[in-house]
Amino acid sequence: MPAKNKMKKFQKKETVRFKHVDFAGIVFYPRFLEMLNDLVEDWFGEELDRPFAEIHQTNGIPTVDLKVQFRQPARIGDELSKALWVKNLGSASINCGFEFRKADDSICLDGEVTLVNVGLDKTSEQIKAVAFTDDTRERISGFLIQNS
Amino acid sequence: MPAKNKMKKFQKKETVRFKHVDFAGIVFYPRFLEMLNDLVEDWFGEELDRPFAEIHQTNGIPTVDLKVQFRQPARIGDELSKALWVKNLGSASINCGFEFRKADDSICLDGEVTLVNVGLDKTSEQIKAVAFTDDTRERISGFLIQNS
Amino acid sequence: MPAKNKMKKFQKKETVRFKHVDFAGIVFYPRFLEMLNDLVEDWFGEELDRPFAEIHQTNGIPTVDLKVQFRQPARIGDELSKALWVKNLGSASINCGFEFRKADDSICLDGEVTLVNVGLDKTSEQIKAVAFTDDTRERISGFLIQNS
Amino acid sequence: MPAKNKMKKFQKKETVRFKHVDFAGIVFYPRFLEMLNDLVEDWFGEELDRPFAEIHQTNGIPTVDLKVQFRQPARIGDELSKALWVKNLGSASINCGFEFRKADDSICLDGEVTLVNVGLDKTSEQIKAVAFTDDTRERISGFLIQNS
Repeated sequence: MPAKNKMKKFQKKETVRFKHVDFAGIVFYPRFLEMLNDLVEDWFGEELDRPFAEIHQTNGIPTVDLKVQFRQPARIGDELSKALWVKNLGSASINCGFEFRKADDSICLDGEVTLVNVGLDKTSEQIKAVAFTDDTRERISGFLIQNS
Repeated sequence: MPAKNKMKKFQKKETVRFKHVDFAGIVFYPRFLEMLNDLVEDWFGEELDRPFAEIHQTNGIPTVDLKVQFRQPARIGDELSKALWVKNLGSASINCGFEFRKADDSICLDGEVTLVNVGLDKTSEQIKAVAFTDDTRERISGFLIQNS
Repeated sequence: MPAKNKMKKFQKKETVRFKHVDFAGIVFYPRFLEMLNDLVEDWFGEELDRPFAEIHQTNGIPTVDLKVQFRQPARIGDELSKALWVKNLGSASINCGFEFRKADDSICLDGEVTLVNVGLDKTSEQIKAVAFTDDTRERISGFLIQNS
Repeated sequence: MPAKNKMKKFQKKETVRFKHVDFAGIVFYPRFLEMLNDLVEDWFGEELDRPFAEIHQTNGIPTVDLKVQFRQPARIGDELSKALWVKNLGSASINCGFEFRKADDSICLDGEVTLVNVGLDKTSEQIKAVAFTDDTRERISGFLIQNS
């Protein structure tokens, strides 16, 4: 399977801050999910040509399914390497794998998240799935890692 | 197994507020997980005799595994009924089912979460799993719903 | 002016939770301001007949000025009594006093906040001050405490 | 007053993200204060040789007084330039000025914040003010702008 060779993941770093940690001094898990949302936002803006600043009026990418394993705690000052890739690409949805690693390359957390491309009608408050454009599909495909 | 008839779930209500929603006017999903954490906190304080205000110096209940399906969006003013129950009780961990329903009883989200009982040593920053006490096990068992 | 005797304050209770506190075990101050925003939201919904769930499409009440003195820390489990009242009522703005007290009635924090009534045009992204209606002015006046 | 010439401010950039904005599409003000706390944290870590990752066990820098004027809203994608400087340096406290500007250099918000240097005793839950060390005073002084 030569196509597998590319194995392109979208990656960003984020340092654990005071605001992320709880009384035990470790990241409070909803803050990890804010970090994950930032990663998706960066991916859409930097790689998929769909910055949230432009799509927010008429579209959204709600999360419909989330699975996470928190493998070890992270503390203030830990520099996390966040990675995201595509496991499955549907007509209007994407299933992504993700993992956050520590400086020693050990996994802090990993999991998968399913996002749906939707159109928003703010007046009627209707939300419905909308197929990705060909351009967006093409860009997303660059991060597809089969059997991941 | 008549004892199973009780099917006791721990339940609380929470109204969606301004701070929970995003630009699309729907709950930003990390805020749903703060609501879930509040539910666990209330359960420990009100039913398990382990208020977080007392255990926080020496113990914690970190989340190690989380699975959520976000079935429909929630908006400002929606009154959510949050429910939590136990699917499996290990010596130092619990696997809980949960669901948030809207006023019309439709499911907003559901999933399962695994919590581990740990002892914290703030000086050494060591965290290790610690078995629940008999009293805590007894109380947790009251919320066990097999095959849920 | 005998009418001023009533000195009506809007009051709500809120218990400090795990999610509010930082590594030092005390409320992280941006969380206090979320609690303040909740208080304003409750006041608008319960007393001013302007629930945020209904006004959010076309109106908003942004905060334009904030002064807070954090007089003592609050910890997990502390039950705070939050109070809000009106110091000045302008045509499209209100200056409110507020204070959070602990169970022993000592002041945790106090300050003042200025809110402006605005109309939002989501398409043009324009925001402009709009005078309060007579009904809203009347209701707000009930919480006016001169020289407070 | 030749000393005024240095006028050194600590500066960082931060882009407004999806998680910061409310239903009106503008930054929810408690999120601005998280951005301010990040700025203080960066200043302590990068310039004062007191990274929060190291001081958090035994010390803290709680905010005791805060004044902010929110002059104009910020939206997703806005790149903010955050600046912090010292207005007054006491033995155990600092009064800092701050401002956030937009890309066109207009002021988004400005204000002042007073921080106190404290020692924490986690066991006794005692918090008391502690004088800054000479080294820290020296470093802080580099950001002092009189009559600012």
